[in-house]
Amino acid sequence: MLILILAESALETIPKSLWKHPAIQHYSKKRGKPPEFLLLDRSYHHSAMKKLPENEKRGRPDIVHFALLEALGSPLNKERLLQVYVHTFSDHVIKVNTEARLPRNYSRFVGLMEQLFEFGKVPPEGQLLLELKHQSLPQLLHEIKPDYVMAFSTEGVSHTLEEAVSKLSDKPKPAVIVGGFPHGHFSKATIKLANEVARIDPETLETWTVASRLIYEYERLISLPQKRLKQQCLR
Amino acid sequence: MLILILAESALETIPKSLWKHPAIQHYSKKRGKPPEFLLLDRSYHHSAMKKLPENEKRGRPDIVHFALLEALGSPLNKERLLQVYVHTFSDHVIKVNTEARLPRNYSRFVGLMEQLFEFGKVPPEGQLLLELKHQSLPQLLHEIKPDYVMAFSTEGVSHTLEEAVSKLSDKPKPAVIVGGFPHGHFSKATIKLANEVARIDPETLETWTVASRLIYEYERLISLPQKRLKQQCLR
Repeated sequence: MLILILAESALETIPKSLWKHPAIQHYSKKRGKPPEFLLLDRSYHHSAMKKLPENEKRGRPDIVHFALLEALGSPLNKERLLQVYVHTFSDHVIKVNTEARLPRNYSRFVGLMEQLFEFGKVPPEGQLLLELKHQSLPQLLHEIKPDYVMAFSTEGVSHTLEEAVSKLSDKPKPAVIVGGFPHGHFSKATIKLANEVARIDPETLETWTVASRLIYEYERLISLPQKRLKQQCLR
Repeated sequence: MLILILAESALETIPKSLWKHPAIQHYSKKRGKPPEFLLLDRSYHHSAMKKLPENEKRGRPDIVHFALLEALGSPLNKERLLQVYVHTFSDHVIKVNTEARLPRNYSRFVGLMEQLFEFGKVPPEGQLLLELKHQSLPQLLHEIKPDYVMAFSTEGVSHTLEEAVSKLSDKPKPAVIVGGFPHGHFSKATIKLANEVARIDPETLETWTVASRLIYEYERLISLPQKRLKQQCLR
């Protein structure tokens, strides 16, 4: 079982300090919802975001969208050997049900996330697919108690992804942390939570690329491709 | 050098037979463009598409969007060792410049593709990033002359991705073909073009997942992760 955490992800509702900004007011009117129930999105709020602290790390819901599509569509997830959490810049944590099937269309994904921030769960009734709570990354790790935490950052120690993932082979409950933001680095608080920080490429790779390769490399580690081709039942 | 071809991709402008459909007329008015310059998109044209031949394979521009983001952001592409072509259901071929940086936002990607279908190139002036022409898959292969063609399909012969990609090691100019559509299989004409058809998982994996893993496995084959971490210049 692998735990994948997208950390400090650029997914949040429009922060209060921007609610009165003319561009946000205009966007709110167009979308027909108050700003507090809308996602911050650099594609539409670029100018309004200029004065926001750490704005280079914020307002990119598409990063979580792509990374979740990569994770949920993986053979590892189909075998229920992957648990995904999205920790956000605003210190919310989304627990993603293995069986969740997310919209491929970006606007629908945004609508779904807005519903999640408004009601705390999706769907509002029936089997939970997504659940949101106010939680910091240390609190999340305290709750799920992984036995090894590996973070990925260009500020870490150089290892190929294969070498890095091979270290998880004797860990029954490893967690990997990938940044869910477009630029910049993890906060020091996040780095402190990791047993190890690995640098798998000299350049920053996109979140979805790292997530996708990481999951695939873990599948290789546990010989999942061979097992699935032999149609062995792993459950 | 690896050539990646997304084949029979679900990316086309709205076909003529649908131009008078009320839902399409409504969408055209909302977008402020005639239907012939708009992309077919199942998210918005689901009901209108019902009578369209092979509609289960069509109208999913998001598939090409994600797959291209995975391909263009890969270390293989950063080293200029990847050439990507998008062949579409409508027999167009898009040649993608290695240096193209695509919009992350879906609506902007759609706008860009619509511009491409209207003008045949993007941007209209200056260095070409995307180029479109009417071309079938056999014509494309005849033009680029790869020395080995491997297609990926659940109807192929079972191999792990690692085994399949290892066969490309002695080929100076291999091409890999991945389906750019959501359901169904390659046409017989496409299958005939491949020297080999590989099945890497018993279930259909999404285009972006196959593309991403394929590129990564090829990087491993040529020891690119090690080389890049050592900061060797490969160019």
